[in-house]
Amino acid sequence: MIARTPEKFRETGIDVRLNTTVTGIDPEAKVVHVSDGDGLPYDVLCMATGTHSVVPPLPGVEKEGVFTLKNLSDAIRIKRFIQEKGCRKAVIAGAGFIGMEMCEGLRDLGLETTVVNKDDLPVKRWDPAFLRVIVEEVEKNGVKMLAKTSIVSVEDGTERRLRLNTSAGALEADLILLALGVRPNVALATAMGLQLGRTGAIAVNFSQRTSRDGVYAVGDCCESYHRVSRQWVHIPLGDIANKQGRVAGAVIGGRPLIFSGIVGAQAFKIFNLEVAATGIGEREAAAAGFDPASTVVWGNAIAASMSGGEKVGLKLIADRATGMLLGAQAVGEIGAVSRVNTLSACLWTGMKLDEIGWLDLAYAPQFSGAWDPIHTAAQALQRAITA
Amino acid sequence: MIARTPEKFRETGIDVRLNTTVTGIDPEAKVVHVSDGDGLPYDVLCMATGTHSVVPPLPGVEKEGVFTLKNLSDAIRIKRFIQEKGCRKAVIAGAGFIGMEMCEGLRDLGLETTVVNKDDLPVKRWDPAFLRVIVEEVEKNGVKMLAKTSIVSVEDGTERRLRLNTSAGALEADLILLALGVRPNVALATAMGLQLGRTGAIAVNFSQRTSRDGVYAVGDCCESYHRVSRQWVHIPLGDIANKQGRVAGAVIGGRPLIFSGIVGAQAFKIFNLEVAATGIGEREAAAAGFDPASTVVWGNAIAASMSGGEKVGLKLIADRATGMLLGAQAVGEIGAVSRVNTLSACLWTGMKLDEIGWLDLAYAPQFSGAWDPIHTAAQALQRAITA
Repeated sequence: MIARTPEKFRETGIDVRLNTTVTGIDPEAKVVHVSDGDGLPYDVLCMATGTHSVVPPLPGVEKEGVFTLKNLSDAIRIKRFIQEKGCRKAVIAGAGFIGMEMCEGLRDLGLETTVVNKDDLPVKRWDPAFLRVIVEEVEKNGVKMLAKTSIVSVEDGTERRLRLNTSAGALEADLILLALGVRPNVALATAMGLQLGRTGAIAVNFSQRTSRDGVYAVGDCCESYHRVSRQWVHIPLGDIANKQGRVAGAVIGGRPLIFSGIVGAQAFKIFNLEVAATGIGEREAAAAGFDPASTVVWGNAIAASMSGGEKVGLKLIADRATGMLLGAQAVGEIGAVSRVNTLSACLWTGMKLDEIGWLDLAYAPQFSGAWDPIHTAAQALQRAITA
Repeated sequence: MIARTPEKFRETGIDVRLNTTVTGIDPEAKVVHVSDGDGLPYDVLCMATGTHSVVPPLPGVEKEGVFTLKNLSDAIRIKRFIQEKGCRKAVIAGAGFIGMEMCEGLRDLGLETTVVNKDDLPVKRWDPAFLRVIVEEVEKNGVKMLAKTSIVSVEDGTERRLRLNTSAGALEADLILLALGVRPNVALATAMGLQLGRTGAIAVNFSQRTSRDGVYAVGDCCESYHRVSRQWVHIPLGDIANKQGRVAGAVIGGRPLIFSGIVGAQAFKIFNLEVAATGIGEREAAAAGFDPASTVVWGNAIAASMSGGEKVGLKLIADRATGMLLGAQAVGEIGAVSRVNTLSACLWTGMKLDEIGWLDLAYAPQFSGAWDPIHTAAQALQRAITA
């Protein structure tokens, strides 16, 4: 995408209004009311309202120095606050992947950083064996992780700091980041009577059409079809939003197009660790009617002969009855994301372990062993299922 | 694989004989004659005779200082020769992937290195646009590339050097490496009447059985089934050999197993460049009855926001009639092999461009853009085919 100014858009006939919010939509009259007083008539309407960060209704969360992070403006605000106030201590509430990624960002800026996590381990999508590797990496880089700790309230602390009261006592910080997840922005959708899905996001079909004629929805505010669980899910990620936008654009422009769905591929980097996953885990698999089995292998990210010993951990989840791959998770200094991408292509077409164990992958010692961890994991799980 | 000594093998009942060659096989009596005079009776015989390096019948190629490289012993011999003779100049005849990989090995040892290539560009499997990138990388690292030059003879040169006469004049060197390709070792197979395939390698079925009952063949001496061209091919690579060995072992041990074939995935690293390919190119595609179309894109290996500008070049080849992917080639400092592996999984199941253009891949800016080069290339080629 080429960055354009509102003026550039206007040259092509697109009316872009900054600092303007939608105050209401009249779906019968087909008019969008906006905060500058205008009523904008439409033939086609596309909802791209995204998500908002969860802010718990706790005392003091409205104080200066308490942030959420959703978009570039938030990031700029946080960075400016750190500079202007000369922040030295930060607390992140929440250990999802935004919380984990922000650890690194804040440490890079030199802040003493503590993560408060209500659960035992962070980013629950991954296997506990991998999560312990993540915790180790984060702690090795100077981040303090508080597990099984919930936040209670924010007060003024000493030396113009904030005090975060938690179930495990009080923490003082210059900056508190609430990274407690996001929810789809569906207020306008609900007000105009659009149907929501089971997840609470806007329900769409494979062409991004909503329940109302002429109204489309794309991106983090709507659901997408998960090809593995065969259910409509809410996974607010940028690449999915891009695809949905392109599909809706084509359809609105008169070219039929289908968004064939997702397989749940996701990755993040935390310090020197690649963390990636695709498909579904055991719990989701059981909920979707599968009989899941899994295995975890630790293999060489590149051939043992060439490596400094870099290991990649790979977990596969498959259905016992059919041997079909259901999901994969990986963690390692290198090679985690690339393996998850290959396995995402396998999930796309419903490949089975007895094929994945023999996949033809580009072998050279600098990139893998002759038997890649993908092969060894798939063959091990195949043996376990058929034993 | 765990390295074992012959003694370790013997403890488990396996008779390993080093420095022993097979002098003949009597398939009627089921006896293998070996160079130490023994006759070894068999019920099951497995041919794993590999390949030999091509040595052209040119004057002087038998001289000391002229090498081929096939196995570890060759590598040790070359390294020892370089040390003992204090070699400073090397010439590599042949610019296949062994020749290219050896450039780097010899440069790492400090040798002035020249590659003599009978063709215009090296490693012909890749698109000329990518081959020029490879030549640039090799030359940037101090290797001299002589194109369109054939070798004529080897003579003694000055200062105890060798002289390689070529169609473009004489080159002096301490060491000459002949990297002119390999041929399957089929002398024993032919002598005992095993059927060879169209490629000249031993013909096998999906269980690695040859044309003669009780006789199997695995690895570089035999063919493998190419799932994309739907033809039996001879692609002597280590990962394929490993798979065929495991299949033959299972079958011989009484467990039915099928080697489902290959898609032609291959990679090598040359200095700071990853070079990878999978599937088939335009020429092979046309020969296999497809109507190939192709596109080359240069994309960001990782998101533009995070990158130092690392580009990855990706070429896709697909069938016009069906949109089915037929092959992929990639080159770049990072991200070439991982994309080829993902596309190898797509080739395995015959995926089409209109699916590949929308694949769900693990997106994070450190690993790719929201639209990966895989997506942009597949969508571009899809548009070109349907235009």
